[in-house]
Amino acid sequence: MRWLKKTIVVETRGKGLYPITRQINQVVLPWKIQEGICYLYIPHTSASLIINENYDPSARQDLEAFLENLVPEGESWHRHTMEGRDDSPSHMRSILTATSLSIPIDEGVLSLGTWQGIYLFEHRSRANQREVFIRCLDAA
Amino acid sequence: MRWLKKTIVVETRGKGLYPITRQINQVVLPWKIQEGICYLYIPHTSASLIINENYDPSARQDLEAFLENLVPEGESWHRHTMEGRDDSPSHMRSILTATSLSIPIDEGVLSLGTWQGIYLFEHRSRANQREVFIRCLDAA
Amino acid sequence: MRWLKKTIVVETRGKGLYPITRQINQVVLPWKIQEGICYLYIPHTSASLIINENYDPSARQDLEAFLENLVPEGESWHRHTMEGRDDSPSHMRSILTATSLSIPIDEGVLSLGTWQGIYLFEHRSRANQREVFIRCLDAA
Repeated sequence: MRWLKKTIVVETRGKGLYPITRQINQVVLPWKIQEGICYLYIPHTSASLIINENYDPSARQDLEAFLENLVPEGESWHRHTMEGRDDSPSHMRSILTATSLSIPIDEGVLSLGTWQGIYLFEHRSRANQREVFIRCLDAA
Repeated sequence: MRWLKKTIVVETRGKGLYPITRQINQVVLPWKIQEGICYLYIPHTSASLIINENYDPSARQDLEAFLENLVPEGESWHRHTMEGRDDSPSHMRSILTATSLSIPIDEGVLSLGTWQGIYLFEHRSRANQREVFIRCLDAA
Repeated sequence: MRWLKKTIVVETRGKGLYPITRQINQVVLPWKIQEGICYLYIPHTSASLIINENYDPSARQDLEAFLENLVPEGESWHRHTMEGRDDSPSHMRSILTATSLSIPIDEGVLSLGTWQGIYLFEHRSRANQREVFIRCLDAA
């Protein structure tokens, strides 16, 4: 059994989905894990993780528009507005998506489905440096 | 320590919640895992996993109706409609629920709560063959 | 490798977010896990887990109000109302948030972000005793 870990940094430039599959593969592939699991964890409260369709960019645009509509900014009842209109909605959008993910690894690679990609979902309007913790258990 | 894995296939016949606890137990119980964890992973972007009430069928119907209302099909701003009206909404419904779950195992069985069942949530209108990856860590 | 486990009980007094980071730390810190992962699992279908902003109480109030608005009680189409108006909505709110979480551990402590706290989200109006299963893998 081996335990492997690394933290990656994702530079965001405002709200939206940032594909991170390639960046994660660059970390995980060299570890040559025969079988095991990969844990992803985002230590932020206004950015989150999702796994979704990796092929057609319009799918990504629809997901971004969807969360924008589902969790509107500037509601009269928002109290937590210290850091701006996007403050509270960014937390709401985070809890509806994922803070932690566990992805199986087989024969060295993440067992993502054919159409699956991993994304960091930035919920703040301004640019940010976001960390993603990668931890892998090599069970072989 | 042991690492155990198997993939099950769930036949869906349109949108809705499909109970899979029994199918998962048929895989996990024979492994006789004294203590550890079971990872479930769905390699699809238009079907997802949830854990919810296992007893009264009306709870399931309400959950299905709820997602149908929360994420309507046919919105004018949907761009990703190549595969039909349910294409983009199926991705939206996926990111609101779970792609990966981790369930403790104690004395051979999944430590689900009394009322908990595991469901595959099909978000597409047509029938599909859906895979669920089961990975278990026997920590004994 | 070590496998460590304990169950904590959280007393809730109606709907809302209950901070449980301290209670979890009281369990995890004495285990002195050099590196590994902590699995949290809630064996209930009308309470869930989230990780979110730990600093300003107004963020918590907004999250509570948000779910209250997003998943209204008393909808005419609700069928699962045996246990009251909050019955079906409590399941809906559960599937939008998390039943299981996996948090990395480094040098003995949970690797939460600076602003992150762990919360139990009670979705029922009445008081409850809620269990949270804590399982840790010490990978050292």
